[in-house]
Amino acid sequence: MSHLFLDKPEEACGLFGVYGAGEETHAAALIYMGLYALQHRGQESAGIVVSDGEKMAAHRDMGLVSQVFDNEILNSLQGRIGIGHVRYSPAGATYKGNTQPLFGRCSRGYLAMAHNGNLVNADELRRELLEKGSIFQTTTDTEIIMNLLAGFSNESLVDAVIRTVEKLEGAFSLVVVSGDTLIGVRDPHGMRPLCLGKLNDTYLLSSESCAFTSLGAKFIRDLHPGEVVVINKDGVMARELKPAAKKALCVFEYIYFARPDSVIDGLSVHEIRKQLGRQLAREFTGEADVVVPVPDTGIAMALGFAEASGIPYDVGLYKNTYVGRTFIQPSREMRDLGVRIKLNPVEKVIRDRRVVIIDDTIVRGTTSANIIHLLREAGAREVHLCISAPPITHPCYYGIDTSVRKELIAASHTVDEIRRQIGVDTLTYLSVEGLKKALDTTADLHCFGCFGKGYPIPSAPEKKGEG
Amino acid sequence: MSHLFLDKPEEACGLFGVYGAGEETHAAALIYMGLYALQHRGQESAGIVVSDGEKMAAHRDMGLVSQVFDNEILNSLQGRIGIGHVRYSPAGATYKGNTQPLFGRCSRGYLAMAHNGNLVNADELRRELLEKGSIFQTTTDTEIIMNLLAGFSNESLVDAVIRTVEKLEGAFSLVVVSGDTLIGVRDPHGMRPLCLGKLNDTYLLSSESCAFTSLGAKFIRDLHPGEVVVINKDGVMARELKPAAKKALCVFEYIYFARPDSVIDGLSVHEIRKQLGRQLAREFTGEADVVVPVPDTGIAMALGFAEASGIPYDVGLYKNTYVGRTFIQPSREMRDLGVRIKLNPVEKVIRDRRVVIIDDTIVRGTTSANIIHLLREAGAREVHLCISAPPITHPCYYGIDTSVRKELIAASHTVDEIRRQIGVDTLTYLSVEGLKKALDTTADLHCFGCFGKGYPIPSAPEKKGEG
Amino acid sequence: MSHLFLDKPEEACGLFGVYGAGEETHAAALIYMGLYALQHRGQESAGIVVSDGEKMAAHRDMGLVSQVFDNEILNSLQGRIGIGHVRYSPAGATYKGNTQPLFGRCSRGYLAMAHNGNLVNADELRRELLEKGSIFQTTTDTEIIMNLLAGFSNESLVDAVIRTVEKLEGAFSLVVVSGDTLIGVRDPHGMRPLCLGKLNDTYLLSSESCAFTSLGAKFIRDLHPGEVVVINKDGVMARELKPAAKKALCVFEYIYFARPDSVIDGLSVHEIRKQLGRQLAREFTGEADVVVPVPDTGIAMALGFAEASGIPYDVGLYKNTYVGRTFIQPSREMRDLGVRIKLNPVEKVIRDRRVVIIDDTIVRGTTSANIIHLLREAGAREVHLCISAPPITHPCYYGIDTSVRKELIAASHTVDEIRRQIGVDTLTYLSVEGLKKALDTTADLHCFGCFGKGYPIPSAPEKKGEG
Amino acid sequence: MSHLFLDKPEEACGLFGVYGAGEETHAAALIYMGLYALQHRGQESAGIVVSDGEKMAAHRDMGLVSQVFDNEILNSLQGRIGIGHVRYSPAGATYKGNTQPLFGRCSRGYLAMAHNGNLVNADELRRELLEKGSIFQTTTDTEIIMNLLAGFSNESLVDAVIRTVEKLEGAFSLVVVSGDTLIGVRDPHGMRPLCLGKLNDTYLLSSESCAFTSLGAKFIRDLHPGEVVVINKDGVMARELKPAAKKALCVFEYIYFARPDSVIDGLSVHEIRKQLGRQLAREFTGEADVVVPVPDTGIAMALGFAEASGIPYDVGLYKNTYVGRTFIQPSREMRDLGVRIKLNPVEKVIRDRRVVIIDDTIVRGTTSANIIHLLREAGAREVHLCISAPPITHPCYYGIDTSVRKELIAASHTVDEIRRQIGVDTLTYLSVEGLKKALDTTADLHCFGCFGKGYPIPSAPEKKGEG
Repeated sequence: MSHLFLDKPEEACGLFGVYGAGEETHAAALIYMGLYALQHRGQESAGIVVSDGEKMAAHRDMGLVSQVFDNEILNSLQGRIGIGHVRYSPAGATYKGNTQPLFGRCSRGYLAMAHNGNLVNADELRRELLEKGSIFQTTTDTEIIMNLLAGFSNESLVDAVIRTVEKLEGAFSLVVVSGDTLIGVRDPHGMRPLCLGKLNDTYLLSSESCAFTSLGAKFIRDLHPGEVVVINKDGVMARELKPAAKKALCVFEYIYFARPDSVIDGLSVHEIRKQLGRQLAREFTGEADVVVPVPDTGIAMALGFAEASGIPYDVGLYKNTYVGRTFIQPSREMRDLGVRIKLNPVEKVIRDRRVVIIDDTIVRGTTSANIIHLLREAGAREVHLCISAPPITHPCYYGIDTSVRKELIAASHTVDEIRRQIGVDTLTYLSVEGLKKALDTTADLHCFGCFGKGYPIPSAPEKKGEG
Repeated sequence: MSHLFLDKPEEACGLFGVYGAGEETHAAALIYMGLYALQHRGQESAGIVVSDGEKMAAHRDMGLVSQVFDNEILNSLQGRIGIGHVRYSPAGATYKGNTQPLFGRCSRGYLAMAHNGNLVNADELRRELLEKGSIFQTTTDTEIIMNLLAGFSNESLVDAVIRTVEKLEGAFSLVVVSGDTLIGVRDPHGMRPLCLGKLNDTYLLSSESCAFTSLGAKFIRDLHPGEVVVINKDGVMARELKPAAKKALCVFEYIYFARPDSVIDGLSVHEIRKQLGRQLAREFTGEADVVVPVPDTGIAMALGFAEASGIPYDVGLYKNTYVGRTFIQPSREMRDLGVRIKLNPVEKVIRDRRVVIIDDTIVRGTTSANIIHLLREAGAREVHLCISAPPITHPCYYGIDTSVRKELIAASHTVDEIRRQIGVDTLTYLSVEGLKKALDTTADLHCFGCFGKGYPIPSAPEKKGEG
Repeated sequence: MSHLFLDKPEEACGLFGVYGAGEETHAAALIYMGLYALQHRGQESAGIVVSDGEKMAAHRDMGLVSQVFDNEILNSLQGRIGIGHVRYSPAGATYKGNTQPLFGRCSRGYLAMAHNGNLVNADELRRELLEKGSIFQTTTDTEIIMNLLAGFSNESLVDAVIRTVEKLEGAFSLVVVSGDTLIGVRDPHGMRPLCLGKLNDTYLLSSESCAFTSLGAKFIRDLHPGEVVVINKDGVMARELKPAAKKALCVFEYIYFARPDSVIDGLSVHEIRKQLGRQLAREFTGEADVVVPVPDTGIAMALGFAEASGIPYDVGLYKNTYVGRTFIQPSREMRDLGVRIKLNPVEKVIRDRRVVIIDDTIVRGTTSANIIHLLREAGAREVHLCISAPPITHPCYYGIDTSVRKELIAASHTVDEIRRQIGVDTLTYLSVEGLKKALDTTADLHCFGCFGKGYPIPSAPEKKGEG
Repeated sequence: MSHLFLDKPEEACGLFGVYGAGEETHAAALIYMGLYALQHRGQESAGIVVSDGEKMAAHRDMGLVSQVFDNEILNSLQGRIGIGHVRYSPAGATYKGNTQPLFGRCSRGYLAMAHNGNLVNADELRRELLEKGSIFQTTTDTEIIMNLLAGFSNESLVDAVIRTVEKLEGAFSLVVVSGDTLIGVRDPHGMRPLCLGKLNDTYLLSSESCAFTSLGAKFIRDLHPGEVVVINKDGVMARELKPAAKKALCVFEYIYFARPDSVIDGLSVHEIRKQLGRQLAREFTGEADVVVPVPDTGIAMALGFAEASGIPYDVGLYKNTYVGRTFIQPSREMRDLGVRIKLNPVEKVIRDRRVVIIDDTIVRGTTSANIIHLLREAGAREVHLCISAPPITHPCYYGIDTSVRKELIAASHTVDEIRRQIGVDTLTYLSVEGLKKALDTTADLHCFGCFGKGYPIPSAPEKKGEG
């Protein structure tokens, strides 16, 4: 197996929740559809837990949603309430027991939970719980949160959730099922997205609005940072945690993670990407004949760049969508095919042209170098690489797997060193100011930590978890 | 899928443990071989957890040992200490999350445990733990025991195990790994077997001695009832729990569960079965031409019966060993094949003969009736059914799935009613006194609870668990 | 399983061949990579046959290349010569025994063959062979061709191939391995593509040039219509069949089947698609605010349309690439999701706009209607559907599965009837003249049969086969 | 994977056929059940082909019947006529394409065939067919027979079968389906068994009668050597080929291949085995305390031996039936477990005893040596090995895979050399005369070729095939 695009910040997780008012609601079917629409947020494992208000049924496994579930399994998951999860996890931590949602029995009865994000104080919380006699059967943050919740056995469910969540530091969106109740939580900084929707009488929670569209459901609203939404037979009730000092949605949700047809915190992902491209065009000082995106995230950025620069947009790189995670690179003769297996230049577009190539990020630089090589081989006269984000110079502690600082090329190299290493004629990163302009007035509502502009949570220890 | 022999007391679980002194010990390979030899004790799931003294690795799944493990998996399970488990579980409770051994992290570090038996006070213990904030991710007794153990975080490992085990009521054999230590426990009544062996420098624990033979290892001794054996770099140390008032090994270990080549608590299973057959012959008052066993447990009993009665032994029923749990009975035309798929009469042996047929038990009676029908169809002149155990009139609370009293034909019918229902010329059950004689002087060391002769543990509530 | 895009002319097959001069050539690895690049030509089954010059080894199965092969299988396929095949087959004919390449032993030794196309005289040829005593173990045209070839047992291999091929009527590209020889054949009309390439000393044959690019190999040239290319240790030798009266490459290779980065018979597929879009823009008489492609084939067409019309291009429909052939549509609640599962509108691009939507064809019309519905739901003010091909009014007899005339909406409805049925404001088909203009001077080198402009082969009986 | 009992003549194949008079007959279900009962004749692959009188449907794969078929597959195989096959094939020839039954279309329509045996003139027949232009897609004798049959396209089906079969030399039983007809053929020597049965109105063909018993069907009769049975809507019609000079059923059908509950050519397999044991006892000159069989074939022989010798029978070796073909022997530490994994001594039976151990054959001797070692380890005072067949000194050309003469220990060693190599106190082979006595007056109806007593077919070239 070969990771073709390791040179990217890896994906976050995806959450989906269903509360069906009517007995006939087949929550598992809706969650299955929802997870399909959220598959881009995590391809390593998938899971669904459903409840009929009393008993729970679950299925979780490694693989894509299409591999983990079939009709027989979905039919065995009967219940009108449920949650689902798709997960990416850092290499080496691909332990099957970590598939989410987690579920179990506490004093309150059955409890299921799924988590997107990363706790900064996970080690500390786990240590406290171990000392009290807890056993941890996984290495997920989710299990910590469930144990905390089980400890508040004398509180009402909602109060217990709130008291639990108040102990957490870091990035987290949560979906929880207990008894006849579905709960959604977004951390006080709102670092990871979570939104509320409705399909007929059935309430839905989703990491992204695109899952509602693909179900034909209505988007109601994003959860506020620090909001706890409680859904039961009485409808939807909202509770607010103490608000955080600073809103801080991860800006990479717009740049890389989210689907372009999603709208997060009021902003269209596709439009923001076009804005990034327009701003990048303003900062690009060279001349060129054609603007070409690195698919798929680069497409909207390249459209914006072309619009603002007047340089025509074209499809200069074809992406073979059949090459997935299971691609094997036969060992003999095939050594250095690299990115060529997944991306091929359209020579007619490239030959004898001065090409602007638009990508979202550079992590280690090797993929970029390979792409530039392909373009030169296809006859490009000049290649100008434009990155629609500032250099990533600092690690992320909130759930994105770029935490090992030494792998960040921009943390240890100047832009010109990177340019030479990649072998490109010019290299333009979007400036932090340009990024703020692209986000318009909302810029101070986002986390810019990995660009060296300060972390929203003061103490961010050297840790690395999952979610 | 079709359970062909539901008409039997279902199997117990099998345990195996390895403590390798040398770094090169591949515990998983030894456990794999051990579980193969214990496969008869449980065919529903199999699992192995190994430790290198610090980290643990695990693999567990539904299915036979041969289906759950392959070379790649075994090679991924590196470590010189480990435990394994094969499980039978009552119909309806075949939840994948219940596969054992369980493992997790407690304040002491990694902990793994597997259990054979059934706790009588499981519900009570679970309730107490839930109130203290525990979460249960499975429905096993094992998870209860692990949570109790984690609670004694200030004690030494051995003391914590002893204090934990003192809270348990019921039948249990346990194998436990924590840090660099392998522990074996047998309950104070010794209701389930557990024995100690050695292969070169490597110590082994096993539910039955047959697993040692198949590894070419030496049998050292059975654990005493109430014994805790602690194995670490200093060798083997034994601790005794408070002894129970009464030794009470489940007598069905000899009659049905164990492999004939095992020796349990000093008695050869094969020889005890022959003794049962001899005694049964003495109690049989009819005349016959041939003695035929119902394979496989009936074989040794029929040999003993033939020896004592002088009636010749022969193979009158052929068992198709290819018919396993995955046999599907195509729905059309195939309705009533029943036992015929797995057992076929050898007509030459049966026709025009007066046949004594030897079986170990009758639970619901339907299988027996089918076998008698086959024999008559094959031309038997008379059929005399001899059962090498007394009628099962009372439920078992200690791990054998005959707990639903209403399914026990002998609990609600006289022997003559059963005889007529099965359609046999005569029906002879071994008497309780005969059973005692067959066991010789050791009879009061066994549990006769299901024959209505009193339970070793006073309070046996109506419960049903797993193990 | 749910075919989401049945409303398309279904794919042709893909062929790949390897002749390695050196013993160390791992032909199977190269074919595997080649088939990956040709996966778009057939997703139902995949197969590889290799030869070491004497013995053959093969693996074929239903599924994608990534599902059919793994490292162990590729390593078992040792040999320096070989051929591969990916197949689409009409619904109902998905018989596993039809997976190609076929291979067997004839009087000349081992023989392997794969075929892309459809014979018009297959029934007649099969009948003749049956009368001579042949047995057919598949329903493929390939087996007919192999049986014909085996019949010329006294000719040299090349003469036998030529005499065989001269009996065939219809569309066919072939790759053949016999002994130490790899042969490629393209039918006299050149209806299906086939081209020659080279990687170091290894000769390659491929349905499309994109497979060479993804291997880093050199494109040498397309085979001429009616050319037989023979590759062995003496190098490449070409033989010409009698030329056909008319060249007739299937025009849908450019419109739909081929990858945009391929170059077929000298023309860039991407550029031809842009040309189609430019010409379509000239024929479109309406006004609009944005041009939106139906992905993926519509993209280049929409770019050309935008360029020629001055209406801006944007990504108005997002395609979920994780939704593949194995998508299951849970039965309850999920009835009418239809195209929504795979395509979602980007509302920001669509709302309050007059949208031109560009697609390649309309076969049955239902998918188009669903897409239009999505766009209206997302707030489109007007929707103008532009199709970059003329109406398909006549069946195809040469390998494209639109042969059932009654399913062709344009065969039985006027453009205005279709427009109303689809529910679009205007519907513009590219004119046949426009198509010719887009193809420039090369137009009379293509088959326009399905547009009612005459078939290149006079007698095209009502038949339907595979390839 | 580890072949634990390679030291045996490997199994023949199993055939089953169904002709249902009524439309509702689900032939595939009956064949499935029949193949289950014939599984002992071949565990490598299984296949079913059914016909509704016009169309055919098929499923074939590597593996046991339980692994190859499930309910969904059986339901997809609709038709009231059909044949099935289980296959053993020599190591190295495990090519998936060789799974039977074969089927295809000839001039007469669909044709399916399965074969048990081995043709002596296969190479010659294949060469003739290749010269006429045939292609062979498998390496089975079956495909040769089908091609011959297809060549007689002007004859009636029955005449074509007879003319085909008259060209065959060697051992063969065949089941054939063409149109509305099921045909069974047994070669003129009757070397392989085939019998006719009936279940209500449905006619059945089977390699062994045990399959009828397990279906609750009636055994009608064995086919005569050289008989062709034709079953269609008019009932059963028999045709006789020219009779062979000598009847020659393979004697190993009784000794090893067949199930003990089968009756072949009028003789009970179980009873013949007991006879072999009785005769062996008469030829054994030693003294002993207990007679122990090597399971499973040795059981009946040991019973006969005990009866005739007066030495008591007991179960001294336990066979772990869970150890199948998929057993993996982990590489480290496990080197020399050998037979121990599958067979374990029952020490109580063995210790301090003089043991007679009964087995059916010795091929290479290594398994026997391992068993003797186990018995000595378990404390046997003396071990006397008695083989219930004469030494195999000559290869078999008719379908049993002992054809490589150098592997036959008895072909190159004296009995005393073998005795020493195996490490046994005495070694007694049944004499050829004893074997004849055990078979009573029927001895000259069997093939004794591998004992050096002449082959029934004069010219037996050095060949090796399958079936």
